[in-house]
Amino acid sequence: MPQPPDPAATAAVLIIGNEILSGRTQDVNLAYLAKELAAIGIPVREARVVPDIEDEIVAAVNAARARYTYVFTTGGIGPTHDDITSGCVAKAFGVELVLDPEAVALLRRHYTGDQLNPARLRMATVPKGSRLIENPVSTAPGFQIGNVYVLAGVPAIMRAMFDGLKGGLKGGRPVASRTVSTYLGEGAIAEALGALQSRHPTVDIGSYPFFRRGKFGTSLVARGTDEAELDRVAEGLRALIRDHGADPYEGEIA
Amino acid sequence: MPQPPDPAATAAVLIIGNEILSGRTQDVNLAYLAKELAAIGIPVREARVVPDIEDEIVAAVNAARARYTYVFTTGGIGPTHDDITSGCVAKAFGVELVLDPEAVALLRRHYTGDQLNPARLRMATVPKGSRLIENPVSTAPGFQIGNVYVLAGVPAIMRAMFDGLKGGLKGGRPVASRTVSTYLGEGAIAEALGALQSRHPTVDIGSYPFFRRGKFGTSLVARGTDEAELDRVAEGLRALIRDHGADPYEGEIA
Repeated sequence: MPQPPDPAATAAVLIIGNEILSGRTQDVNLAYLAKELAAIGIPVREARVVPDIEDEIVAAVNAARARYTYVFTTGGIGPTHDDITSGCVAKAFGVELVLDPEAVALLRRHYTGDQLNPARLRMATVPKGSRLIENPVSTAPGFQIGNVYVLAGVPAIMRAMFDGLKGGLKGGRPVASRTVSTYLGEGAIAEALGALQSRHPTVDIGSYPFFRRGKFGTSLVARGTDEAELDRVAEGLRALIRDHGADPYEGEIA
Repeated sequence: MPQPPDPAATAAVLIIGNEILSGRTQDVNLAYLAKELAAIGIPVREARVVPDIEDEIVAAVNAARARYTYVFTTGGIGPTHDDITSGCVAKAFGVELVLDPEAVALLRRHYTGDQLNPARLRMATVPKGSRLIENPVSTAPGFQIGNVYVLAGVPAIMRAMFDGLKGGLKGGRPVASRTVSTYLGEGAIAEALGALQSRHPTVDIGSYPFFRRGKFGTSLVARGTDEAELDRVAEGLRALIRDHGADPYEGEIA
């Protein structure tokens, strides 16, 4: 359902799992959530990668939920011994874990007979007072309690869960961007770029060096919520590049 | 030079930059640092992604350096207005930023004449008391102050900087791993897996579901510092899989 806007909305992402901190798994969930949330006016202000240690997860959830409008966690809601997120979120909120009848019914449709063993039934336990988040990929649901949204770690499942819930989030104006690239080192244009940033304080201008086709270059990215102001900054970026004797390109140089 | 071992060594990684929190850039530095550090016996215990906001960076640096043996930061040491890491680290340590003569000399060899403009000279300013970290890719150095190592954000440069400094770190026994995979859902083996984990408390067993070649499966990863114990756990994993009527595969299933 459409929600009234919240121009001050912010978010944090907590990536839970030893496999991210060991380097075994490359996280891709943060970038997805960051883009999706920016598009509905909820900028991600912080992300943490937290190990599978109860005290660490509880502390990270409590720090984040006190500070940001929304908190999204990924990982640790499966059936194995290292899946401890649900219990940790319950502890963070000071509530007990309960077996959710709706979640049990969902799992019973997916797992027949004794396939629904005690380990899989754990996936139907959620902190008391939670609302389930639908999992159209593999059934076992996520859940929301307070401002904390607990999602799966497997990217395809996390995305499906987020797509289902995002309509209920209240954001501000979408964060839009303009990207202008050039084959100039960022040091060559840094001073002019700083001056342009000073003249447009409501737009966030980032400068990202790259090395492509055997040449150094820079991508300049302006981000903000005012489309007209973004267009002015983009024109300023193109002018700045031409002033330094180079050509501006729209977007990233592939 | 070889260093005496520190079996209790730990690390945190601070990924600095709005571009990671906006989803514009996919971080790949954490996974690289995590693997490299584990291999020299320095497990990464926490990672944070921090925006280009001075107070946030200062707070994150101070929290991490008090808690972990080593802190590695990536990003924000270039020549543009959004590169504020060096100043923030100086503030975290309560020291001033100084122009480092050695860094200036390095930059003078790389940038000729008025190419070495004021913006690029900023890359030669470091917190007072720092030691430079060599940058064999693009000259502008990183630096180390106390237990904080400040590296570039561009992956190729970050890797080259880390490769040069890692010989000076003191770790414990390398964290090794054994991976056994199978086409069984993790829920089917969760109970036996939990029991195996209980019998081998010094090894960290992770369970990671996957979907490949049209089939669901699970990769089981045992991590620890005792190679013989890891071999016993790997044998236990293979036996557990066979007990459930499936075949174990060495490593990940590609």
